[in-house]
Formats: sequence, structure tokens, C-alpha cells
Amino acid sequence: MKSMENFFNPHSVAIFASMKEGKTGYEIVKNMVEGGFKGKIYPVSQSDGQIFGVSINKDFKNLEIDLAIIAVPGQFIPSLLEDLGSRGVRSAVIISAGFSEVGNFTEEKDIKKIAEKHRMRIIGPNCAGIMNTGCNLFASIEVRALSGETAFITQSGALGGAVLMMAEELGFGFSKFVSYGNRCDVDEVDLIKYLEDDPRTKVIALYIEGLEEGRRFLTQAKKTVLKKPTVVIKAGKSKAGMRATSSHTGSLAGEDKIYDAAFRQAGILRVEGVEEMFDLCRGLIYYPKIKGNKIGVVTNSGGPAVLATDKLEELGLMVSEPSENLKNELKKILPPHVSLGNPFDLLAYSGAENFAQVSKIISSEYDAIIAIFVPTASMDSTEIATALGKIKEEIKIPIFANFMAGRLVKEAIRELEKYGIPNYETGERCARVIQKIASYTLKN
Amino acid sequence: MKSMENFFNPHSVAIFASMKEGKTGYEIVKNMVEGGFKGKIYPVSQSDGQIFGVSINKDFKNLEIDLAIIAVPGQFIPSLLEDLGSRGVRSAVIISAGFSEVGNFTEEKDIKKIAEKHRMRIIGPNCAGIMNTGCNLFASIEVRALSGETAFITQSGALGGAVLMMAEELGFGFSKFVSYGNRCDVDEVDLIKYLEDDPRTKVIALYIEGLEEGRRFLTQAKKTVLKKPTVVIKAGKSKAGMRATSSHTGSLAGEDKIYDAAFRQAGILRVEGVEEMFDLCRGLIYYPKIKGNKIGVVTNSGGPAVLATDKLEELGLMVSEPSENLKNELKKILPPHVSLGNPFDLLAYSGAENFAQVSKIISSEYDAIIAIFVPTASMDSTEIATALGKIKEEIKIPIFANFMAGRLVKEAIRELEKYGIPNYETGERCARVIQKIASYTLKN
Repeated sequence: MKSMENFFNPHSVAIFASMKEGKTGYEIVKNMVEGGFKGKIYPVSQSDGQIFGVSINKDFKNLEIDLAIIAVPGQFIPSLLEDLGSRGVRSAVIISAGFSEVGNFTEEKDIKKIAEKHRMRIIGPNCAGIMNTGCNLFASIEVRALSGETAFITQSGALGGAVLMMAEELGFGFSKFVSYGNRCDVDEVDLIKYLEDDPRTKVIALYIEGLEEGRRFLTQAKKTVLKKPTVVIKAGKSKAGMRATSSHTGSLAGEDKIYDAAFRQAGILRVEGVEEMFDLCRGLIYYPKIKGNKIGVVTNSGGPAVLATDKLEELGLMVSEPSENLKNELKKILPPHVSLGNPFDLLAYSGAENFAQVSKIISSEYDAIIAIFVPTASMDSTEIATALGKIKEEIKIPIFANFMAGRLVKEAIRELEKYGIPNYETGERCARVIQKIASYTLKN
Repeated sequence: MKSMENFFNPHSVAIFASMKEGKTGYEIVKNMVEGGFKGKIYPVSQSDGQIFGVSINKDFKNLEIDLAIIAVPGQFIPSLLEDLGSRGVRSAVIISAGFSEVGNFTEEKDIKKIAEKHRMRIIGPNCAGIMNTGCNLFASIEVRALSGETAFITQSGALGGAVLMMAEELGFGFSKFVSYGNRCDVDEVDLIKYLEDDPRTKVIALYIEGLEEGRRFLTQAKKTVLKKPTVVIKAGKSKAGMRATSSHTGSLAGEDKIYDAAFRQAGILRVEGVEEMFDLCRGLIYYPKIKGNKIGVVTNSGGPAVLATDKLEELGLMVSEPSENLKNELKKILPPHVSLGNPFDLLAYSGAENFAQVSKIISSEYDAIIAIFVPTASMDSTEIATALGKIKEEIKIPIFANFMAGRLVKEAIRELEKYGIPNYETGERCARVIQKIASYTLKN
């Protein structure tokens, strides 16, 4: 795995590309320098001078290179790889396009042959690069990832770029980011195998359009999910979607039903798209397990709680009534008008104390809790967040939040996050996350 | 309809409530004054002095009142209503709670009787008030609505509050907002009947938990949808959700399947929750009709386009291939490497000019277009937004956008909105909107 380690924790990175302003090489060096990469950065190009304070090298004879990032035109790549290989470079990311994705299969095979000859590992070609926030490695032209505990690997570079932009907006961070493009060598299987033992990764997320070696992937995935929850977006479900994937990545498209069954069997969590992926990963980071299907809904707000309840039950979870014992316990602390059913609607009587106490009391009978809160003039949302955060330590089941909405709950949501309580924009999205995690717990 | 008109376009509004800081009356006067209400504001309370620059009135003998907003404790309401009625006040919003929602059915019937006697119309009790952005009427303690073209009426006040907070965050505006609570008099039927002829309302959206007079509602809705698209969130689908609605609003819960069939038959667009409601209303405001199911996807980005295509086809729309004629036309303007299938993936060649030209050319064969764009170093997203906006005037079919994501497209999204092109965070959400509008067009 030495070469895989070189991809993610290199001591030195050489970038082979044009260093002219706005060009790929320029953008990568910019990201590497501004991102604060902890190792050496070697721009290699015919240009003279410096770039972002780093000297440009005309050749690489005297450089010791752990990782090569290549964005030169395709025709120069074979000889460059030969050169790198014979000098002992074992890891290269090829960003350059123009290979199997536009029908140039022979060119891609040639690259692979050279790499094999030199026992070199390749990510790409036709990819958007890689990132490891653990050592500030941003070998990519994309928006730099924030630090986090989800590793994201993607077959589509453009989708990868969009995910990074969305994540930045959400404040969602990544441990690793890998755009692996045409995967002439390193593929999903190698990557999830590496990531399952990566101590900085808690959740693995993938975007794939097609698998070339389905059986090999599933064999590996079955092992990986036992160590880390694995989330997948599989695009190309529909006939028109399949047509589009085969045209743009050169991968074989398979029947979606087969993929779906295989993911299910392997214990992989399939999501519809990037929004659901973010939602689910944000839940899994804090709560890898939900051990049953009884969900308690605690709220100050009827309507939103009903919508969440509807969705929970639609997804096969149970918003079941509390036992008589539990009702009696609740009676002791709640005013007489409050209904003791589930959802537990605390109405206007619900101060921070009540929210926390009710959550604690019901935790003995439920497998997870959603706290749904809508600000009112008399209730401080941040106080409620703090109270829930503090009670979280005392109770054994996951608490999710749906504080609605906008500027009035911004501070409260930050407070919730501080305590590791994920907040969702709607209770329905929260319900979807709970259902997926519960199904994963059951399976693995 | 005089009294309905008094609710929304009163010349004078009297607020009956405690004017102490933080209390309901105080918050309403604050909203009315800060919101810039164009008529007279009369706070009525036992306190002395002024509030937000308006004198507090100890009684209302000499006041001419078009609309009374009432938030005094329940036991004072009957005599207050008698008084108001005998002085010719014809419209009152009762915010005070403590009626049928907590089992006090007799008290609610009494109110209704008094109102009938004086031919007075009542909104509420147990509601969160009303707004009309057209005359800056914010007779509510909730976040003031921005101005817009959607009227939102809601049975749950808390849900209404959450929707206003979410809307503020989204920059989404309303023509009217009505929280109608226990609807002892004015109900959904009266409201949609009024709104179907309101010149400032283009789309009507409702949140309901149960209908007391289903047949009357559907008879009216069938007429309303012919004038304006009508969107509904119907909560209380599940057994547990139903239990919760009947406990907190006192309305009879019905079988969800019956509601679903009835909405469908009436041509009402049912959505899952508030997020989908916003998405759909944002589409309907610009595009009340989509006349078929052939959708063209124009993009610079494979992955996101595949996800959108999958969702479109899953929902029964067709991302069909262009005719040979159309392909020939496209060939004339596009570089040789670009695939001529749908999705039309323009790759890195896609400048603003290409995006607009391709959209124009394909508009002859498709019923709507989604333009999916992910920023790259070489492409200016705002230029692309402008080009699409300009071409919008020339083509006859709706264009939707999915510019991804975050800060890199903020300006472009504002530019799109300027031209009336709604942008969605994901192509999948955009697909759901298109499907709903197309189904509505077919039906009505």
C-alpha cells in the first residue's frame, strides 16, 4: 500500500502542467500553497520564475517526488510517465482528458502498460484531482475541501466539483476527496479498501456511474461496511441517464435493478443524490447506529411534527405511543394541558428544561429522538439547543434536530453542532436519515 | 365580500391585547409599524402612553375600525365581540387560543353565534394572524413576509411561522399570509375563493391537516385551479400523524387516500412538505404551464446532468433524443467532440454563447429545458446566466436552471432570477417541479 499512502500523505508533490495564469497547473499550485500543504511543492514547466512564492522547475532530475500531478496534453503523457517511472516515482494523478471518455481506448491502455511496467499506481486520467485535509493536500483545481470526517470519491469530476461547492456552503467537511475519472488503474475497490482503515475517515461516500468489476467491488464493500458506513450515489438509473454515462466516461452501464440489489446485499446505503448524501453523512458521523425503529418526536410545534411523523411512518418507522408508565412519569413534570402522546407536543410550555427532561425520560422507550422546534417570542432557541446538547451525554440514543428556520435559529444550530447534534432543514429530511441509519444498523 | 376585503385591505386596524413589552399585542404593533402599514393603527389596552410612536387607546368608542385583531384572554372575547359587532365592525382575527383545540367547543360555538348575529366574519381563533404585503399589513407576531406572488394559507400557526422564516432565508415572497387556526368561521373555502380573484396572487398554497367540509372545498377548488395553480400540503397521512392533528386542532381527520384522490380529481397539486412547496411555487410563478413531457437537458457537466435525467425519467418525463434534423443544426455550431444526444453535454466548450444557442435550437422539439451548470476556471457563470436570460424571451418553452453551487454561482442565480428563470439546488428537485407543473397543465 506504499503507493496508495503516497497519494494521500506525500512528502513532496510535483505538478506537471502549464503554470500560466488561469491554467490548470497555476490553479493547482495556488490551491496547494494557499491550502498550506505541509510537504514540498514542485511546479514543473517550461516557464521561468516563481509561482505563489514557489520556484518553477524546468526539469525534475534532481527532485525527489512522492506524488506526480499531471495536467500536460495527452500526447506528452507516455514519455513523461516512462521518465517518472524509471526515476522511481510510484504514484501519479493524471488530470488530463482525451482518453477513453472520447473513445481513445488505445492511448489509455498504453498509459496503464507503462504504469504496470514501473509498478506505478495511477489515479485518472480525466479526473479532477485529489485532496487530503489531514495534511492540507489540495492537488486539484476544485474548491478546497473543509476538514471533516467523510471521504468522498467520485467518478465524475464535475459532480465532484459541485459537491465541494455545496459542501463549502453547508460548512460540511471531508477527510479525503478523490476524483478518479477513467480509473485506468486505481478504482473504487482500491479506494474503499484504503479508506476503511484510514483513521481520519468515519464515513465513506461514493458517486459512481458504472462499475467495471462489480463482483470485486461488492466483495470488498461487504468488508468495508463492517468497519465504516458506506453511502453511494449510483447515477445512470434510467435509459437516458445510462446513455449519458456511457458516452462521457466510457464505462459499461449496467441494469440499475442489479446494482440496487447488490448494494442492498452488501449493506451499502444508496441515496438519490447529493443533497441526501450530505444529510445522511452528517447523521452517520455522529450516529453510525440506530438500534430499532421506535422514534420519539419532541416538539413545540404541531404542524412540523405532524409532517415529520407522516414521513417516519411512511418509511416504516414507528412513532408509537408511550407506555402508561412513561406517561405517568411525564405527567409529573408537564403542565396538565400538554398531550402525552407521541409526538410529544409541549406547546408554548416548552422551555429548555422541558425539552431536555422529556427527551431524557422518553429515551428509555425509543431508539432515536427528533427534537422539532420553531422559535416563538417567549422561547430562546439557543437555550433549548444547549439543554439538548447537555442531555445528549446522559442518554444512550441518538438525538436529531429540526430547528426551523433561517436567521432565528442560526446560532442555535451552531450550538447543536457543538454538541454533535445534526440539524436538518425539515423533519422529513431528518426522517429519511434515521430510516437509512436504522436499516444499516439492522443489516451490518 | 366586503368583510373579506376588510381583512386584507383595511383602512384601520385595532389591536386588542396587552401592549407590554414582549407580549402579543406589543409584537403585533411592532410588526404593523415597522412593516409600514399604510392605514391607521389603533392599539387598544389598559396601559397608558405610546407604543412604537402610536398612542394606546383605553377604549374604542370613537374609533372607526375596519379590522379588529384580538389577543386578549379567551374569557373576555364574547363581550368584546358583542361590543365590536354592535359598533359595526365586520371583520375580526382572533389570535387567542384555548378553544376547540383544547376541547372548549362550547366557547368556540358561542363566538361563532355572536359573529353571526352581527354579520361579522372571524378568522381564528387560535391562529397566528394575517398579512397582506400589498398594503404592508402585518397583523401577526410572525416574521414579516417579503413581497411576492404566492398566497399561503395555513391551518397550523407554528407551521406558518416556520414557513415565513424559511421564506425569508430563501428570499421567497408572499402576496398574502393567513393562519386560520380553528376556522370557527372563515375557512379554506372562503379563502381560496377570495384569492382566486386577487390580482396580486399568482399561486395559492395551503397547509391543511383536515377538512371539515370536504365536498364544499373540492367544489370550490375545481373552480379555483382553473384560475390559479393551487398547491397543498396535507398533513396527517399516517396513523400517528392523524392522532397528532386531531389532538391539536380539533378537526376531524380523514383517510389520506380519500384526500389524495380528491386533490388529484380537483387538479390540486399535492406536495410532500414545505421544501417542495417552495420549489413548486417558485416554478409556477414563472411557468404556470408545461405543455408536454419531452425535456431537454443542456449542461457543461456530465454527472449532475445524469442525476437530473434519472429523476426526470423516473417521474415519467422523457429525456428523449433529438431528431436527425436537430442534430444537423447542432452540428453546425458545436465542436466535433460534443455529443449530440440529450442530455446535451457541452463539456468544456460551453461558453455563454453555446449554452444559449443550443437552448434556442432545441426549443423546437422539447417542452421545457433544464440548464445545468457547474463553474469551471474558464467559464463565467454570470455570463451564462445573462445569455440564458436573454434567450428566454425568444423561445416559447420554460427554462429552469440548476447552477451548482454556493458562493461561485450566487451572482449568477440573482441574474437568472432577474430574467425569471428559477434556479434549483439540484437537478432532481428541478425535475420534480417540472413533473408537477406538466401534470397540472395536462389536468386543467
